[in-house]
Amino acid sequence: MGFREHLQDVVRSVDGAIACSLMGVDGIEVDTHLADAGGLDVKNLLIEYSSLIRLAREAAETHQAGQVTELCIQTDQVITVARLVSTEYFMVAALKPDGNFGKARYMLRVTAPKLRSEL
Amino acid sequence: MGFREHLQDVVRSVDGAIACSLMGVDGIEVDTHLADAGGLDVKNLLIEYSSLIRLAREAAETHQAGQVTELCIQTDQVITVARLVSTEYFMVAALKPDGNFGKARYMLRVTAPKLRSEL
Repeated sequence: MGFREHLQDVVRSVDGAIACSLMGVDGIEVDTHLADAGGLDVKNLLIEYSSLIRLAREAAETHQAGQVTELCIQTDQVITVARLVSTEYFMVAALKPDGNFGKARYMLRVTAPKLRSEL
Repeated sequence: MGFREHLQDVVRSVDGAIACSLMGVDGIEVDTHLADAGGLDVKNLLIEYSSLIRLAREAAETHQAGQVTELCIQTDQVITVARLVSTEYFMVAALKPDGNFGKARYMLRVTAPKLRSEL
């Protein structure tokens, strides 16, 4: 399976998923599988959110809280779940507000090592 | 019940909880109930994390993703769950890595309206 297939697999497996991306922590997208985003500009939202991963990591390092492994942001219109794949890359799933948040976390947890082995 | 009692109630109700704070989105703490943080500098970590709430809100507004309601950050050593109480205030619980994340989300969801009514 390539990157794209893993991302598709996450979107297919999670009720309410609208996108799954592999991105650099620098905000540069590697690959994205996009389902129906309902007019929401998911790709650019995810790029902006990547700056939060960098900030969270800096804050955690400063206060000896260890490595950031996961970051979730919920808004009225979209839930995002991001998981670090390596020090340089993370994967992130975007869901509708009524999407299955727990399943998304689970799918990222099991898929991240598969992506890591292909980086 | 005052602020402090609500924050204590969250820490008491969630397995593995080490702190619960009411904070301004500007990073200024209103009140905190701190259990055993095991040497972790939780208060200052939460202050730094408040900048992530501001950033997430700006990103969500820019991309028409609605209001940020919740932000969760997991590191090797601490899980934090933050929930907006109003446009100016949020509450945040910090847990040990094996703490009950689902219960923390639930407790913040039910406690936020109680705090809001007292602001």
